[in-house]
Amino acid sequence: MAQARRTFVILGHTAAITPHFTLNDLPASAGRLDILCRCVTAAFCLSHGIRTAVQVYLVLRDQVAVRLEGSRLKRLNPDERSTAALIKRALEALPNVRPGEQCESTPGVFVSLGGLQTVLDKLQAEGIALYLLHEHGKDLRSVEIKEPVAFVLSDHQDFHSSEEALMAGCPRLSLGPVVLHADHCIAIVHNELDRRASQMLQ
Amino acid sequence: MAQARRTFVILGHTAAITPHFTLNDLPASAGRLDILCRCVTAAFCLSHGIRTAVQVYLVLRDQVAVRLEGSRLKRLNPDERSTAALIKRALEALPNVRPGEQCESTPGVFVSLGGLQTVLDKLQAEGIALYLLHEHGKDLRSVEIKEPVAFVLSDHQDFHSSEEALMAGCPRLSLGPVVLHADHCIAIVHNELDRRASQMLQ
Repeated sequence: MAQARRTFVILGHTAAITPHFTLNDLPASAGRLDILCRCVTAAFCLSHGIRTAVQVYLVLRDQVAVRLEGSRLKRLNPDERSTAALIKRALEALPNVRPGEQCESTPGVFVSLGGLQTVLDKLQAEGIALYLLHEHGKDLRSVEIKEPVAFVLSDHQDFHSSEEALMAGCPRLSLGPVVLHADHCIAIVHNELDRRASQMLQ
Repeated sequence: MAQARRTFVILGHTAAITPHFTLNDLPASAGRLDILCRCVTAAFCLSHGIRTAVQVYLVLRDQVAVRLEGSRLKRLNPDERSTAALIKRALEALPNVRPGEQCESTPGVFVSLGGLQTVLDKLQAEGIALYLLHEHGKDLRSVEIKEPVAFVLSDHQDFHSSEEALMAGCPRLSLGPVVLHADHCIAIVHNELDRRASQMLQ
């Protein structure tokens, strides 16, 4: 695989880690999985196509990681329900996954055991710079960012203190004066980096 | 009602105009209503609250307008399905709505007959400046924008030529080098205007 230029790590503090939820009630039965689905859409979906140089880690309850790899993704549609169905398939495959291994449950969707620490270790081993998206951070527009880069976001809950401790060395970036949903943050980050990439090409 | 400071008009070219669709398949059975639901979320939903000074017009097949008014909205959750349920309730109320009138089907959700022309006439009569979000437009970041303001966006289809003709006098704004989903455009517009409003306060 080619290394993804942009990685988004989203912490799902209450998300389901078993497939025993209904697609008809993602907010309640799947523990706000709707938020994570919208993040996947914001990370990958363009008006007419997929961002292939992106990967997403969904970290579920600090126990399970679902990684989506843009260069291999198929069958990703922008609606929440169909994305949740892909995650459900990943969780169905989880019982057969051994520690330290991963399983590709559908094309471009990988599931593994392990929480935030495991994901951070992997990204750092790959030499990817890590940033924390946080309301108390430096303005994204004022910070030079080199790809490959990873951004860590939280769902509807604030970062837990244990998570902040793990990422104590990561610079914090803020996107503006208003605290936004995670998927909207991803759209704004992409837009800023798209603009910079476009200016570099000119 | 207080006048909304920001209005988003989203054209749903294929969206259902009757309530005979299933919430279990918004992309197909409801004609990509999932896109419009995500636009509603992007327009109103903050991490912890609702943007009360916003209104949204969903223009369905140029025949029906569903208006959501932030200052009166209740029961708006960020997930697609619950938003679609509000729109379904609005469409159930439609047969009892006479031309030129509107019905508040649930708090803050109004349904009426009429397409884009009707909506544009109303906004212009209210003195609201109109902008078209379009890939071939001036960069949003370089344009001074005074609120109250309205932005018109299209769903997964390009603007039809008849719609472009109706809005021939409206300035076109572009958000960047990549063509994005409508809901991501709304998040980016809000972010830019939030930043400006915050700077004005400092």
